Amino acid sequence: MLRIYGMLDSGNCYKPRLLMALTGSPFEHVEFSTRDGSTRTDTFLGRNPIGQCPLLELEDGRFLAESGAILNYLGEGTDFVPADPYDRARMLQWMFFEQNQHEPAIAVRRALTVYPERKAAATPERMKTTLERGNSALEVMDRALGGSAFFAGERPSLADIALYPYTRDAAEGGFDLGPFREVTAWLTRVEALPGFKPKEWTPAG
Amino acid sequence: MLRIYGMLDSGNCYKPRLLMALTGSPFEHVEFSTRDGSTRTDTFLGRNPIGQCPLLELEDGRFLAESGAILNYLGEGTDFVPADPYDRARMLQWMFFEQNQHEPAIAVRRALTVYPERKAAATPERMKTTLERGNSALEVMDRALGGSAFFAGERPSLADIALYPYTRDAAEGGFDLGPFREVTAWLTRVEALPGFKPKEWTPAG
Repeated sequence: MLRIYGMLDSGNCYKPRLLMALTGSPFEHVEFSTRDGSTRTDTFLGRNPIGQCPLLELEDGRFLAESGAILNYLGEGTDFVPADPYDRARMLQWMFFEQNQHEPAIAVRRALTVYPERKAAATPERMKTTLERGNSALEVMDRALGGSAFFAGERPSLADIALYPYTRDAAEGGFDLGPFREVTAWLTRVEALPGFKPKEWTPAG
Repeated sequence: MLRIYGMLDSGNCYKPRLLMALTGSPFEHVEFSTRDGSTRTDTFLGRNPIGQCPLLELEDGRFLAESGAILNYLGEGTDFVPADPYDRARMLQWMFFEQNQHEPAIAVRRALTVYPERKAAATPERMKTTLERGNSALEVMDRALGGSAFFAGERPSLADIALYPYTRDAAEGGFDLGPFREVTAWLTRVEALPGFKPKEWTPAG
């Protein structure tokens, strides 16, 4: 069976779990902390030179890292990857936006806020820049959603699965989603998808 | 003809140009500054809600943003996208790594160093964290390249095109590539690919 190594509290690790829930696909969740040095061991770096979770282990023992790549691999052939090449590229556009401009601000500010070991890194300067950049990312999302129900068009795609987790938890990092009406309406649409499961969900062992 | 709006000095904008050079594909380069407010106008935001370059304009007038998405769209069906689903996902793994952990440190530190209008943002704290994170990203690359000639295996892929530009210019941001022997050997391999062109190249009008 497919195995997903991940930390339950991490939005990046939630993404592949959410896709598997929405597609009704079986997998094993292996809880793996990114906070206690487990991702820096030689064994782990041999599996994933990038040294992060989530990490997907295929049935043949090969590994794949980076939530965006894992989503694309697992999503292939499902309704969450558009068949049209342009629509598919638009989906990737939002997935790269998430990893380049959204996660480094919104997820990082949340981690600096909620994880005690990150406190030393939570300088006033860092908290200020992540707040500004996170709000800019939310503005971009609000602008984009003005024209469509989901990020790659009228149907949900991997882009929505990639953007949902850290947007949902943004308040834990001190962001106010109130002014972003399109974004909050979209969160509700994602949560209404058949098969949707919250972050704390894992499949019954 | 395909049109790529981009700023000649930007590594992100160089990526699609490099792919077009390596595949011998015709396109029009439209010089477009990301430094003078041009990407913040209503017209531009209507084309790209993310407000950045590069921006691809298709022959039918539709637009596509984010260098990683543009590379995937333009690379479809070329030798730079592996046919095998796992190899393709490994390629995406390195493209997401680049946008999440490499570019935000190495490209940003270069911008803070070379663009006068970014000087106010180049605080000692910012210069320190981007240096540390950039060196970590280079360590990851060196570790990964120990096992293969290119990032997604023995043949070049979009992952190499995504990682090349800002790695090549890292010294301009104060990074020393000397200790990263695998990385410097790989840069030479990329530059030896048939059709390779340097960043300042544009197709003859």
